Amino acid sequence: MLRTHAHFPVIAVLTSTFMAAQAQQPAPAARSFSALPQMTEAQLDNFPPQLINDLQSIKAAALADDYGYRQVAHLTENIGPRPSGSPQAQAAVEYVAGELRQLGLDVQLEQVTVPHWVRGAETAELIEYPGQAPGTAQKVVLTALGGSASTTPDGLTAEVVVVSNFDELKSSGREKIAGKIVLFNEIFDKQKAAAGLAFLSYGEAVRYRAAGPKAAADFGAVAALIRSVGNADYRLPHTGYSVPAGIPAGAVTAEDATLIADLAAQGKVRMHLTLTPQKLPDAIGYNVIADLKGSEHPEQIVVVSGHLDSWDLGTGAIDDGAGVAVAMEAAEILQKLHLRPKRTLRVIAWMDEESGGAGSQTYKKDHESEFPRHVAAIESDSGAAHPLGFNVRMSTAAADLLRPAMNVLASFGTTAVQPSSYPPGADIAVISEAGVPALGLEQDGRIYFNYHHTAADTLDKIVPSELRENGAAMAVMGYALATMKDPLPR
Amino acid sequence: MLRTHAHFPVIAVLTSTFMAAQAQQPAPAARSFSALPQMTEAQLDNFPPQLINDLQSIKAAALADDYGYRQVAHLTENIGPRPSGSPQAQAAVEYVAGELRQLGLDVQLEQVTVPHWVRGAETAELIEYPGQAPGTAQKVVLTALGGSASTTPDGLTAEVVVVSNFDELKSSGREKIAGKIVLFNEIFDKQKAAAGLAFLSYGEAVRYRAAGPKAAADFGAVAALIRSVGNADYRLPHTGYSVPAGIPAGAVTAEDATLIADLAAQGKVRMHLTLTPQKLPDAIGYNVIADLKGSEHPEQIVVVSGHLDSWDLGTGAIDDGAGVAVAMEAAEILQKLHLRPKRTLRVIAWMDEESGGAGSQTYKKDHESEFPRHVAAIESDSGAAHPLGFNVRMSTAAADLLRPAMNVLASFGTTAVQPSSYPPGADIAVISEAGVPALGLEQDGRIYFNYHHTAADTLDKIVPSELRENGAAMAVMGYALATMKDPLPR
Repeated sequence: MLRTHAHFPVIAVLTSTFMAAQAQQPAPAARSFSALPQMTEAQLDNFPPQLINDLQSIKAAALADDYGYRQVAHLTENIGPRPSGSPQAQAAVEYVAGELRQLGLDVQLEQVTVPHWVRGAETAELIEYPGQAPGTAQKVVLTALGGSASTTPDGLTAEVVVVSNFDELKSSGREKIAGKIVLFNEIFDKQKAAAGLAFLSYGEAVRYRAAGPKAAADFGAVAALIRSVGNADYRLPHTGYSVPAGIPAGAVTAEDATLIADLAAQGKVRMHLTLTPQKLPDAIGYNVIADLKGSEHPEQIVVVSGHLDSWDLGTGAIDDGAGVAVAMEAAEILQKLHLRPKRTLRVIAWMDEESGGAGSQTYKKDHESEFPRHVAAIESDSGAAHPLGFNVRMSTAAADLLRPAMNVLASFGTTAVQPSSYPPGADIAVISEAGVPALGLEQDGRIYFNYHHTAADTLDKIVPSELRENGAAMAVMGYALATMKDPLPR
Repeated sequence: MLRTHAHFPVIAVLTSTFMAAQAQQPAPAARSFSALPQMTEAQLDNFPPQLINDLQSIKAAALADDYGYRQVAHLTENIGPRPSGSPQAQAAVEYVAGELRQLGLDVQLEQVTVPHWVRGAETAELIEYPGQAPGTAQKVVLTALGGSASTTPDGLTAEVVVVSNFDELKSSGREKIAGKIVLFNEIFDKQKAAAGLAFLSYGEAVRYRAAGPKAAADFGAVAALIRSVGNADYRLPHTGYSVPAGIPAGAVTAEDATLIADLAAQGKVRMHLTLTPQKLPDAIGYNVIADLKGSEHPEQIVVVSGHLDSWDLGTGAIDDGAGVAVAMEAAEILQKLHLRPKRTLRVIAWMDEESGGAGSQTYKKDHESEFPRHVAAIESDSGAAHPLGFNVRMSTAAADLLRPAMNVLASFGTTAVQPSSYPPGADIAVISEAGVPALGLEQDGRIYFNYHHTAADTLDKIVPSELRENGAAMAVMGYALATMKDPLPR
């Protein structure tokens, strides 16, 4: 998940939390439809009894299915990390394409030119600081940010200036910053995250990852560091995309940021920093696009998707092997149940979400003429935890029409439909911006940023029963959108 | 904290948990002594009203004191990791000695010959495994165990054999083990830890760290790996002491152990392993021994202590800078309040607890003749979290005599007095084995093994208010033992 460009309106997020809290109430065991508000004419018309029955069958099948888990297990454990341009990304494309062909889908590989940045050495030590014992240095744990420039192999040495925010950087001015290493010590708000507002904490902190290095470079800094964007306290650095700044850029762990800030408050701190990533020539990657053709309106398209590329530190399980797996599972369930949607269900495994979004830009270029026939697009890119519901960017009337499908998911607490003023998925943003109704599957995000973009984003972080709920939500909503009587209005 | 040799009787641990649970009940705000069971004659006789008043003053002062926190902040942030034989360990000895001299204590440095093992490169990759993408390998995160032998600088390559326990190793036999890398995949029991039995989880798992490499070497293994002993799931390797086995020995993270076990269940897994630690010639270290002379019986000694050395990955905050800090604080509080104990309060900052216990062995050698005059010994080496009470190895009559002191600590929930059949501290074991009543300050250990022996054992893991409670417990109990009318009976 990237979202450096997203806006985070507080009202929307608060609404989300309220709805999430509602969603987490245990669903009454024997709640009948008659206990719910009366269905509207349009809802009843679009969701005839047979469709509701089919959605119930899809849900039941998904909640008993281990297909999605097996997919993400293969992607993470057998293939491994899948950064843009890597042989693992290519292996993942071939694997997913093969699996979807085996399901009987019409599979295309859409060629994408992707950046190819590879991590190198990454070490740092404090070599001068108050109270230092003779002949010693303090190790600093860090990782390069995506797109970081390289130091020389021997590294560079400079004083560290700690700033809490952009204003402090500006008020420090060029004379205090030039020639120094700037550390942005913006602290991830753990309380908000624990309270369900993790994306707000992330949005506040990630600004420094995205724009901090460039801002520091503009003041003459020789390197820029940020405090890792996340709520774990396990000496774990978080990587992620950063606007290229022409200087080495890294993320130190929360612990190391605190250490440096504490020491810098006592006196001069100098660091020796070695980051040797390389920007290689652009590479070829692929979006995997697999159609389960619609029986009545094959020209109308409903996208279900996740992104196949990942960061390189972990194995990309919650970000976003899980999203690809549940999109694949949506097709697998329909094939297993011999349910043919009226419209085309298009499974997309996006390439390059993490490093600039070349995959979605290419899709726009190649498929823009089809956008008028894109009925809706769903993306799952917020992890694999219990699904609370969907963030939706569509008209209120359109969102309201989805209630019969949401009712099917209510038995396991997936009930929230949260209006979003920004595209609810980085890859489907290009489709959403064209006016197509867009849905982001919204998982419980309280601990998502403990793991996201770290070495600890590994298969064990996925709870199989929660992944099955996500598979059910994706399959039910995908089939509903592809089979409801009328295309969802714009 | 080492405790590889400790026995963990279930009854004792269950008792501990029960008492810990009692201790965690909020203390009644206005509980008066009259509401407690009647004091015995011996308790009243040993704790006259003036002593109780003084203990209350000590507690109040400690709960408002930041001396201990400042000490552990300096040890961890300004000095850093303090492994045996390191310049940081030497700097810490000098720093602590200086601080205690400044408090007016009579300070001696007791020379200790310590092992000097230094970490080198530590990398591993899976280079062959089922489903491997062409031209790729999977990175494995690991760290060398203390005392590990070294591979060549180029590393070694061998197949990995995964065993769950010693029985599986034995039943595999030499023909399956010889020439291979053995991975002991004993899983740390998180449920027990969450339920308050962390030391039991640790005791079960740490056997493989202590004895696994030697057992594997005996079957001809070329290297041994263990699953990290701890309950964190943040791709964080845990180091620790291991019986020298003559082969490279490391701990992979929980995630990597799961990955390797999952892949090995599917087919052949080969690893390239590089661990290049060095065993250097033995070095000189010191126990810091600082006496606050008793006013009436200076020859009688009460020890308050923690260990100054630490592992090298983190900065040794909870293991065990905190223990040293609260022992120092016990003396600082008495000096600040001008309270002179009747017996000598001896602050000890032990050296080499983590790498074999040379400090405590040297103390035994040098001070054994004084052991008849050692009245009691306290050690804090289970972290810095809220103190539940004390593990005590002494007669029931002796433990019972401590009730008036425990009553003083009850206002913040430090009430548990848990009989222990093993020495309640690795460094005071030599004193305890001589028959001296021994007390281990027992902290809430539920998340202790998330951090212990990892890179994440850093200052931020200490909650200042909880450290103050520990300081109060150490100071109150230390002063009580040093000032109660009669020496605690054996």
